[in-house]
Amino acid sequence: MENLHEEIEELIENKKINELHKLLDEINSADFPSLLEDFEEEKRLVIYRLLTKSKAAEVFAELDSDVQESLINGFTETELKNVVNELFMDDTVDLIEEMPANVVKRILRNIKDTDRKIINELLNFPEDSAGSIMTTEFVEFKETMTVQDGFDIIKKTGLKKETVYNCYVVDNSRKLIGSIEVKEMLISDRDVKIKDIMEENPISILTSEDQENVAKLFDKYNYMAIPVVDKEKRLVGIVTIDDAIDVLQDENTEDFEKMAAMLPNEDTYFKTSVFTHARHRIMWLLVLMLSSTFTGLIIQKYENAFAAVPILVAFIPMIMDTGGNCGSQSSTLIIRGLALDEIKLSDVFKVIWKELRVAIIVGITLAVVTGIRIYFQYGKQYPGRVLLLSSVVGITLIATAVISKFVGGVLPMIAKKLKLDPAIMAAPLITTIVDMCSILVFFKVAVLIMGI
Amino acid sequence: MENLHEEIEELIENKKINELHKLLDEINSADFPSLLEDFEEEKRLVIYRLLTKSKAAEVFAELDSDVQESLINGFTETELKNVVNELFMDDTVDLIEEMPANVVKRILRNIKDTDRKIINELLNFPEDSAGSIMTTEFVEFKETMTVQDGFDIIKKTGLKKETVYNCYVVDNSRKLIGSIEVKEMLISDRDVKIKDIMEENPISILTSEDQENVAKLFDKYNYMAIPVVDKEKRLVGIVTIDDAIDVLQDENTEDFEKMAAMLPNEDTYFKTSVFTHARHRIMWLLVLMLSSTFTGLIIQKYENAFAAVPILVAFIPMIMDTGGNCGSQSSTLIIRGLALDEIKLSDVFKVIWKELRVAIIVGITLAVVTGIRIYFQYGKQYPGRVLLLSSVVGITLIATAVISKFVGGVLPMIAKKLKLDPAIMAAPLITTIVDMCSILVFFKVAVLIMGI
Repeated sequence: MENLHEEIEELIENKKINELHKLLDEINSADFPSLLEDFEEEKRLVIYRLLTKSKAAEVFAELDSDVQESLINGFTETELKNVVNELFMDDTVDLIEEMPANVVKRILRNIKDTDRKIINELLNFPEDSAGSIMTTEFVEFKETMTVQDGFDIIKKTGLKKETVYNCYVVDNSRKLIGSIEVKEMLISDRDVKIKDIMEENPISILTSEDQENVAKLFDKYNYMAIPVVDKEKRLVGIVTIDDAIDVLQDENTEDFEKMAAMLPNEDTYFKTSVFTHARHRIMWLLVLMLSSTFTGLIIQKYENAFAAVPILVAFIPMIMDTGGNCGSQSSTLIIRGLALDEIKLSDVFKVIWKELRVAIIVGITLAVVTGIRIYFQYGKQYPGRVLLLSSVVGITLIATAVISKFVGGVLPMIAKKLKLDPAIMAAPLITTIVDMCSILVFFKVAVLIMGI
Repeated sequence: MENLHEEIEELIENKKINELHKLLDEINSADFPSLLEDFEEEKRLVIYRLLTKSKAAEVFAELDSDVQESLINGFTETELKNVVNELFMDDTVDLIEEMPANVVKRILRNIKDTDRKIINELLNFPEDSAGSIMTTEFVEFKETMTVQDGFDIIKKTGLKKETVYNCYVVDNSRKLIGSIEVKEMLISDRDVKIKDIMEENPISILTSEDQENVAKLFDKYNYMAIPVVDKEKRLVGIVTIDDAIDVLQDENTEDFEKMAAMLPNEDTYFKTSVFTHARHRIMWLLVLMLSSTFTGLIIQKYENAFAAVPILVAFIPMIMDTGGNCGSQSSTLIIRGLALDEIKLSDVFKVIWKELRVAIIVGITLAVVTGIRIYFQYGKQYPGRVLLLSSVVGITLIATAVISKFVGGVLPMIAKKLKLDPAIMAAPLITTIVDMCSILVFFKVAVLIMGI
């Protein structure tokens, strides 16, 4: 890739346009987005102008929005018109949503009247709904058609459709009545009626459906496309699997961010400004920082205990970290299980029972290892009290494991029940809650056993 | 779904097989896996036997392995043969990998000789390689063929192929020389030569390629299938997008698990035994628990400091939690950015510079809020020292933010550089490291400023 970049730079500088044309022809269109990004604006335009019309539109749709903007700024009106009218409708909508107002105006001016109406409709669907990610470019048949009729339609309009492999059958009031795969048509005879080989009552989704649920359908079932209908069951668009993958990855990224106590962010790491990064991170940090002062208050209450036995303070980090880690293990498994529909809300008692048993095994192991460690580390220093100390820390660790796995297991399910995103009940919040409990247990047990 | 279950139960108990047959016919095959799971073994078999042959194979491939096993145990040899020979080759391989030895023997006995050879080959590819997830059922053309020849092949063999929409062209030594979409064929005339409309030098992957990289290709480019070749560039299989989605989701789950300090687990939450759960969680808990004793040692060293100013101990939880959260925010963003290829190893200085600036904004905000809080909370209690205390905690918070964002940003990149999975450098490990640094800074600053 590095060499390719230099080679192109050289050809542009030496104005060897023919050779450049030939070189660009050999590059897969999927590789252009990252390639173009590395060139300065003027050279970008030179390269882009040498692409064939259909390749240019394909490449353009995949570019990052700032590269798209820089290209549009260099385009003549005719060039802009060509690109916009080659784009699939849903890509045009994405483009409009990303561009600043003055660029949007130029784009809308160059769109065909008929298309503008559809785009306006698409722009009106709520963000993250099926309507907002669907494409209106699908192949539709009437039920009276034959397979040959179907192929004729595909041949005539196929290039302008996002997929021709999943076609849909509508009745006279445009209601969805069937779906048919081109595969079925290919293995049938040409004079067979579409309605005899179509799948009746295909699964469809409403325009208002959350995109996350749409993506889950693709994950669960092996669909390549799913039809989108309005409330009257009229076919208005389709969602294709490649859009579903993007949604799936975005939703995963969002979960990762929420689980690390950040507000989700749509841009990539480097595209996000320092100030925005800070803004997305500070809210939860403040909330959690202020909450953790409660643990501080508990410690303050036991000032006399650690004045008498200062070594107790040295165990605070270990107990806090272990509790936090135990709890976040459980919450991560439950959050992910809920996201993948592997765990249902009604499973809450099964989760508690499972986590309880895991906690006891884990807690006892941790307690035994720590007990031995304390015995060898402090045996000489506190010969009379080392066994008491071992017991205090050991009991605390078992209690911490049980509490943290209970809290980590249950809180995400409560969040889901309350229609909140379970992902907010992840490591950071769980840690803060578990801290309080485990430090309280620690000092209570210490006072009790060591008689401080 | 609940009602459907009861309805079916009732029909089975009243032996209304005809009605049951009709009801089952109306259910989408994608809904059977979760439906069948809820029935007891015997009724499962009754339902399964009422499915049509092709639907039965489709459903079978999607079942969980324990449901598959229970069905196979109820199958006659003829039934088993029917199912196994209807399955796609890669699904058979998955099945064999999941079943216990006695079931595998029964399966292998019922596979056609020609298929057994291919399956043995597929079984020999390393786990998680492209070879292990590819299917050998694809459509291939010779370059001399016409579009009509192509359609004839699809019509004859299409039903047994995993996809007919992406076809591949090989030369006489079976080397991959082109790919062609059925779409292109549909819009071309029947007598056009395949080689004139095929895409030359299509992107392909080696059988040994890591499945994660394969899934990334699908995520990055809008492919529906990618051809898999051996070292001699001979076409041996294809990976289709639905398999890639499964890989993508599995890899995401694995990252979630690693980032919460667990060994990755292939089974779902409930399918994993309590003992396995405990085993997967205990290793990292032990390592992190023992590491956090170093923070304890640091605290021990400053016994005199907190003997003089006991309130210092009360700030330990807040400083530890804030450091952990700050660090895990950064590490999560970097780990995710690396996984999505949005961040490259060469960006390390860009990351450090960005994190540094974010850390300063975040750190100062946290310090100011905490300073004010301390002033109001402890102003009356420690009138002479409250400003000193505020400064100590404030300075520590700023330092903690800088250290944690640096460590969180850099460690995942170092892991990647060392060819380790960046996901292990997540919240738990970062927290433990940051704890040590921040507690050390805290006491050093306290001793210095408060003159203890």
